[in-house]
Amino acid sequence: MNRLYLIPTTLGDTPAEEVLPASTLEALRGLHVFVVEELRSARRFLSAAGFRGHVDELELHTLNEHSTPAEVEALGELFERSDVGLITEAGLPAVADPGADLVAMCHRNGVPVVPLVGPSSLMLALMASGLNGQSFAFRGYLPAKTEERRAAIRRAEKDSSALRQTQIFIETPYRNDALLADFLCGLSQESRLCIAADLTLPTQTIITLPVSEWHKKKDFKIGKRPCVFLLLAR
Amino acid sequence: MNRLYLIPTTLGDTPAEEVLPASTLEALRGLHVFVVEELRSARRFLSAAGFRGHVDELELHTLNEHSTPAEVEALGELFERSDVGLITEAGLPAVADPGADLVAMCHRNGVPVVPLVGPSSLMLALMASGLNGQSFAFRGYLPAKTEERRAAIRRAEKDSSALRQTQIFIETPYRNDALLADFLCGLSQESRLCIAADLTLPTQTIITLPVSEWHKKKDFKIGKRPCVFLLLAR
Repeated sequence: MNRLYLIPTTLGDTPAEEVLPASTLEALRGLHVFVVEELRSARRFLSAAGFRGHVDELELHTLNEHSTPAEVEALGELFERSDVGLITEAGLPAVADPGADLVAMCHRNGVPVVPLVGPSSLMLALMASGLNGQSFAFRGYLPAKTEERRAAIRRAEKDSSALRQTQIFIETPYRNDALLADFLCGLSQESRLCIAADLTLPTQTIITLPVSEWHKKKDFKIGKRPCVFLLLAR
Repeated sequence: MNRLYLIPTTLGDTPAEEVLPASTLEALRGLHVFVVEELRSARRFLSAAGFRGHVDELELHTLNEHSTPAEVEALGELFERSDVGLITEAGLPAVADPGADLVAMCHRNGVPVVPLVGPSSLMLALMASGLNGQSFAFRGYLPAKTEERRAAIRRAEKDSSALRQTQIFIETPYRNDALLADFLCGLSQESRLCIAADLTLPTQTIITLPVSEWHKKKDFKIGKRPCVFLLLAR
């Protein structure tokens, strides 16, 4: 029976052999049909991961936040003729991206789902943060509008305090420093905030400090780097 | 400056080369001093990961749920003479185990922390569940007492519904089937429940069904296997 393989990608330009284990590389290289979030980055990744020279011969289908339920359903016919690999733009498929709809369709249709090992920016950040790893919530993106965003930050800090739960967020890179400013403006001095940028890359930066200490680092800029934000209230 | 390396382990008896990437194996094999959750399983893992024959020459220190803050603080002196690797009993260190206290101590003392890539049972389960990967919370273990446990299940389902948040739990393996029974007893028929057992192993089992469908699988037993439970309310 054909299967859906969930294929993690590298987080940026790390060589695939460095951060993906043998079982993932082997499964990946045996596939010819892929469902991908973004064609260009998927081709670049597949080329770097061992399909050098013949990426054009692979069959790629797109699944992104604009895909309709009917389009997801239509991908079901792929499994009648082949195994399929699911690839996201960076990191783990079906986490922080729309890939879960394809996985859910597979469960409904009895297609076995095989998750493969690879880098998770959320877990690398959580491990390295020193914040509570025994209770945590990933909240994705905060609202873009200032008032809603401030309210969401206050709510997250309150939940973090009540449940002793680390709160995890991501942001579009060009808004990283604005989000950092919003956190410093809205959080209590005693809350701890971790910034984890460029994970697995040579420029990796991981800093955990109480908000009071962050206020002293006025010149610190994250810049337009992939970044995970983690918060634990006192 | 000496560093703390966060070293993921295999989930069960998979060969280390299968599920750990080159960057993790290389960092691991360069270390001589480790802080580990459990001596016996750490020795078994280190031996399988490339220290065959000379595991006894490595320096191992213990950090577990019985360690006091003073004992964690005392581990700080290790960094004056060496890099240190942190190893948990299975999977990612400082996630779902007490290792975060050592990481937090490193942040306070300016010791750089380097998270390495490896299998995360929570993320493998989440990816493969088909449940919402854009908002999720890990709640760890549910209370052992029946009434508290039932209340916690109701609260988790309510939060899941209100926030459209996947709820993730783990359980001591011998209690897996009792927890499954509690979920089936306490959850709404329309909530979806995923059981992900023996991840990365040949016996891997991943099933996502609405609670109403789980009720029809009366003969299904998880058994004493490492298992992740995931819940998404309608």
